[in-house]
Amino acid sequence: MNRTNRTEISTLGEFGLIEHLTSDITPVNAETLMGVGDDAAILSFKEGEEVLVTTDLLMEGVHFDLTYVPLRHLGYKAAMVNLSDIYAMNGTPKQITVSVALSKRFCIEDLEDFYAGLKLACERHNVDIVGGDTSSSLTGLAISITAIGTAPAGKSVKRSGAKPTDLICVSGDLGAAYMGLQLLEREKIALDGEEGVQPDFAGKEYLLERQLKPEARRDIVEALREANIVPTSMMDVSDGLSSELLHICKQSGVGCRIYEDNIPIDYQTAVMAEELNLNVITCALNGGEDYELLFTVPIADYEKVATLKNVRLVGHIVKEELGAALVTRDGVEMELKAQGWNPLKSE
Amino acid sequence: MNRTNRTEISTLGEFGLIEHLTSDITPVNAETLMGVGDDAAILSFKEGEEVLVTTDLLMEGVHFDLTYVPLRHLGYKAAMVNLSDIYAMNGTPKQITVSVALSKRFCIEDLEDFYAGLKLACERHNVDIVGGDTSSSLTGLAISITAIGTAPAGKSVKRSGAKPTDLICVSGDLGAAYMGLQLLEREKIALDGEEGVQPDFAGKEYLLERQLKPEARRDIVEALREANIVPTSMMDVSDGLSSELLHICKQSGVGCRIYEDNIPIDYQTAVMAEELNLNVITCALNGGEDYELLFTVPIADYEKVATLKNVRLVGHIVKEELGAALVTRDGVEMELKAQGWNPLKSE
Repeated sequence: MNRTNRTEISTLGEFGLIEHLTSDITPVNAETLMGVGDDAAILSFKEGEEVLVTTDLLMEGVHFDLTYVPLRHLGYKAAMVNLSDIYAMNGTPKQITVSVALSKRFCIEDLEDFYAGLKLACERHNVDIVGGDTSSSLTGLAISITAIGTAPAGKSVKRSGAKPTDLICVSGDLGAAYMGLQLLEREKIALDGEEGVQPDFAGKEYLLERQLKPEARRDIVEALREANIVPTSMMDVSDGLSSELLHICKQSGVGCRIYEDNIPIDYQTAVMAEELNLNVITCALNGGEDYELLFTVPIADYEKVATLKNVRLVGHIVKEELGAALVTRDGVEMELKAQGWNPLKSE
Repeated sequence: MNRTNRTEISTLGEFGLIEHLTSDITPVNAETLMGVGDDAAILSFKEGEEVLVTTDLLMEGVHFDLTYVPLRHLGYKAAMVNLSDIYAMNGTPKQITVSVALSKRFCIEDLEDFYAGLKLACERHNVDIVGGDTSSSLTGLAISITAIGTAPAGKSVKRSGAKPTDLICVSGDLGAAYMGLQLLEREKIALDGEEGVQPDFAGKEYLLERQLKPEARRDIVEALREANIVPTSMMDVSDGLSSELLHICKQSGVGCRIYEDNIPIDYQTAVMAEELNLNVITCALNGGEDYELLFTVPIADYEKVATLKNVRLVGHIVKEELGAALVTRDGVEMELKAQGWNPLKSE
């Protein structure tokens, strides 16, 4: 990365570097007995508590593009997408471990920025960084994060519990993160080679924030608990609503109907879609990276869930043989297909 | 990779691929409530049990070279080095999660080989694969493994508990994995461009096995338990004995003396060192990747530890101000330095 103050990583070495990055970390959770600095972290959980573990490997050029993603935001987002997976199980995140492999174009200040983002995300969600590891990479940056969380016994929510007549709910709005990505890609191409020109993102701040600084929905998990609602199934929207709904349908052995009219879309998303001549519903269904929660609740919980803030009813679960479909504004049923972001698809 | 039967990963897609690779996995541990296939795995631990978590990120070209490491062996080793970290805490490994990022030169059969090695390692150590994830990489292969294990309350062994007069013990022998690497590197250079020529490794099988198929020392942890010995400090030898001893000394606030005469070295290691004109003790101290256990025990345990199979007393802990030193055969003290393998050192 280009910097005026640049300290080479070799001046600290691997162990010195990790010490430098993690020495100010003080665990806040009682479940963390010992963090970074040994062969393994030592944790402790209450009897009967369910322990949730999820992991993600992010590769430069595939999952992120450092030409427009600042390292601080990358650290924040890398933590957040893993915390989101814990919330999506109806859990509370408690710890993360972080491994980073980086090539020589990175310096200590770059890693400090990355860790600043990580730490901010962890601080906001009361999560301890209990393992840290850096090594080198021949090309680019690779980031691996594992998140650990807990849920009371029997309260973890899987993808497999949806039943016909259950209501399908989504938090927040969809498609904005995808629009943010389109915006960044467009400006990257437009500005390529033009040093010093600053892109104009006025009126599109929300789209950028959704792409660069997603927020895992702890508030929704807490609101569900307060309202005494235990979803029958839940997952987070990382690949797109269509793709996630199909996972729930497959793993629950059910079908679904969602209604075009009910898909929550922000004003900026709609404006940007029009600018780019894209179908906004397609973007909302397949865009991905929203990190909103998709969940189902028994129809008996209708009144409770209808009053929840930032939650929208988008449809309902049906029998498996009826398939998974979007009902358009004019009442036509269109089969849902997983066109979500798939890094392994053939081009 | 070169194959006659090659199935492109795009024929299965990301989700199909993971299902294909993990559908035959059946958890064997009571602690595993749900494995692969949801936002997170669900685990459960006993009250008061300590839960150990360790993670590793392995990058092609830095941590392994696929020109001479078969993918099956790589899978085995990738699991083993993480299990070794759990044993090094005096724990029992229970679960691993696996993330793989790979470029298009890999096919489904390659991943099957990798998973075959992973599964074999897990089967031998009664470990469940509870998370799996594949995505793509612009260049090469990246592997991230997180291992989770348990230890009875208060029985995890850190690096920080060594006390003056404690005995320093090492399992197995040292330097052979490094010699195996030298051997493979030598043959790679010698055979470069000569198709069909098979290298002759006769009489050096042990060195190759130590490099390609290391075995985490569960047997030592079990033997310690049976003998009722709780080490005061322990870690596994991944970077080299010198480097690891210096970690224990630093984190325990002590010094040490180890004796050249006592360093355990296999016959094949000694022969190979002579062939390469290397000092065999230097190789044993700094070679790394042995995955043996280095631990300290109170001097009162001398008789118990002296009868343990495959364990060698190599020295003792001294006060911090005496420093860390190797005592040579002729009685000279040489300061220990961490010249271990450090992927971030400047070249």
